[in-house]
Amino acid sequence: MGIGDVTLPLAPSVIKAFHEAVDEMSKAETFKGYGPEQGYEFLRKAIAEHDYKSRGVDIDIDEIFISDGSKCDTGNILDILGKENVVAISDPVYPVYLDTNVMDGRTGKALDNGYYEGIVFMPCTEKNHFVPDIPRQKADIIYLCFPNNPTGMTITRQQLKQWVDYALNHKSLILYDAAYEAYISDPSLPHSIYEIEGAKQCAIEFRSYSKTAGFTGTRCAYTVIPKTVMAQDEKGNWHPLNALWYRRQTTKFNGVSYPVQRAAAAIYTEEGKKEIRQMIHFYMKNASLMKKSLTRMGFTVYGGDNAPYVWVKTKNNMKSWDFFDLLLHKVNIVGTPGSGFGPSGEGFFRFSAFCQRENLLEAMDRLEKSGI
Amino acid sequence: MGIGDVTLPLAPSVIKAFHEAVDEMSKAETFKGYGPEQGYEFLRKAIAEHDYKSRGVDIDIDEIFISDGSKCDTGNILDILGKENVVAISDPVYPVYLDTNVMDGRTGKALDNGYYEGIVFMPCTEKNHFVPDIPRQKADIIYLCFPNNPTGMTITRQQLKQWVDYALNHKSLILYDAAYEAYISDPSLPHSIYEIEGAKQCAIEFRSYSKTAGFTGTRCAYTVIPKTVMAQDEKGNWHPLNALWYRRQTTKFNGVSYPVQRAAAAIYTEEGKKEIRQMIHFYMKNASLMKKSLTRMGFTVYGGDNAPYVWVKTKNNMKSWDFFDLLLHKVNIVGTPGSGFGPSGEGFFRFSAFCQRENLLEAMDRLEKSGI
Repeated sequence: MGIGDVTLPLAPSVIKAFHEAVDEMSKAETFKGYGPEQGYEFLRKAIAEHDYKSRGVDIDIDEIFISDGSKCDTGNILDILGKENVVAISDPVYPVYLDTNVMDGRTGKALDNGYYEGIVFMPCTEKNHFVPDIPRQKADIIYLCFPNNPTGMTITRQQLKQWVDYALNHKSLILYDAAYEAYISDPSLPHSIYEIEGAKQCAIEFRSYSKTAGFTGTRCAYTVIPKTVMAQDEKGNWHPLNALWYRRQTTKFNGVSYPVQRAAAAIYTEEGKKEIRQMIHFYMKNASLMKKSLTRMGFTVYGGDNAPYVWVKTKNNMKSWDFFDLLLHKVNIVGTPGSGFGPSGEGFFRFSAFCQRENLLEAMDRLEKSGI
Repeated sequence: MGIGDVTLPLAPSVIKAFHEAVDEMSKAETFKGYGPEQGYEFLRKAIAEHDYKSRGVDIDIDEIFISDGSKCDTGNILDILGKENVVAISDPVYPVYLDTNVMDGRTGKALDNGYYEGIVFMPCTEKNHFVPDIPRQKADIIYLCFPNNPTGMTITRQQLKQWVDYALNHKSLILYDAAYEAYISDPSLPHSIYEIEGAKQCAIEFRSYSKTAGFTGTRCAYTVIPKTVMAQDEKGNWHPLNALWYRRQTTKFNGVSYPVQRAAAAIYTEEGKKEIRQMIHFYMKNASLMKKSLTRMGFTVYGGDNAPYVWVKTKNNMKSWDFFDLLLHKVNIVGTPGSGFGPSGEGFFRFSAFCQRENLLEAMDRLEKSGI
């Protein structure tokens, strides 16, 4: 229940489309060489229709860029953003946002508390219900991730609207990671930042099939950059980030494997959608079982309702790593120490619901019997 | 005969392995989630044995990094190299080396002749038989590509030894692009820079399955960074580039699709090797037919013996783009203007041998009848 890696096999519709595309690669008449760097139209059309139009959002297919992973995209996006920008990052959060900024030379020195000079860290705690407060200073680039990894917490439309307004007022850019949107069950919550008015002027959205459809080993994701998102150069001139990213991707990337794109497109068929929903339902049942057990054991538990992660508060202010050691050695259970996601994660622990049911039940049983 | 994209379908062994791996993804017991970012051991072992040990070169599997393309790797490698380095690039050559340096802010302004300030350009002309001369000034990073795209020309062991010696003497780094090594037929030519003594101290090698096995649409490549290749930081301390690249890849990349890696590994089976050799033989027969026809028409022709590209000198010093227009409009043939690869490509034209045989014969026939 440690790393956020899926365990269920690919859906039957995905497997079928994958095989068919491999067969296409075996015949000269249907063989595919270099494809469009930004992805095949069949996949971008399906995304525009099923992930956006279905939620009342108009996204043009030229605003969608298929890639081999959100980890790549959230890292590589820094290629087109000036080093002088002030970056704001939630704490705790998926460590790649911070690490890639450190590697890109955007930060000063590492501080004793786990922070870096030059970055605006936004603590997400029980007090703010794990939704970062709007910063008082100006941030140029803001990373938001909802449903959140690791806390499993979500953001309401109203809260997200405040962020969009902040970005519009400050000419900031929001990097919105919606990798877990498929796990949202509460109908009032936004799946995409573009459901919020004005977001198409200030936000880039990252989506992935890794958790939506079990593609962690198959590799496919996409990034949306509306043509209306502009960024200012050092001379004060405004440029569309869509064109800059297109240039970046066509120069440094050669597109995603054709059979993988066909496999991804199968998710949007009627059959595919049904199968994906079942997978998500299975993992969310895990999360719910986990949450129930942990609550019964006296733990304070967050997340797990609209995300595959359960965020557990340790008892008696135990440190995250001490709790890790205790679980590992006393009951042979693995989870992820909250402090690994940032200093505000100290005293918390992330359990992933991407596990097999019998392992989960066994783990909860052992934990309960241990009296920890 | 324009873009260097393959036309033959994937080899039967590759298709078989691809299907089998897709089947593995359909069952929980054999399903693969996140894999190692640097690639599965089965593929790295096959590379170390068949691409290196077989040629007397010892490469450890931890020195091999699987990726989704050499275009990505040759671009992304700049992430781990300081901006102050002086970069030397052949002219003409694959445009990605220059473009990625421009995008990375390593160059000054664009000059009228197509060059950029701050880059050491190394003209490759008839005079030096399209092998760049050793620069008089110090270059920190040197791009070499052999067999060459676009000229199709090769480098001898002795010439390559001079470059390795230069790099060792000047503490420079050679970025060696060997994407076309599988097309070498002359047994005296090196396939890998590591066949040259000392290269494991100063060279990174890029290899790709795009041209070797028709993977342009399937996407798989690899980069070799020996643990003995060191780079100096601004304080004068030396660091292994292998460890830096490992950090870059694990932070910004999540590995290549599992079925694609299985498909790539099939190239190294006995059956796979035979099939790949046949594909290469087919394209090289194209190159040879092209060369013969063009020579008979009175063109001066280079390359095409150890590379799938034929480098044609236009007649009467005609400009590359004028020749392009002439061919396009008068005989409906497409090739690539040499000047697109750098100013020293002016007056030349690249024909790709990755075409279908009947198209090639028809094109040569039309060209001959046109009297161009």
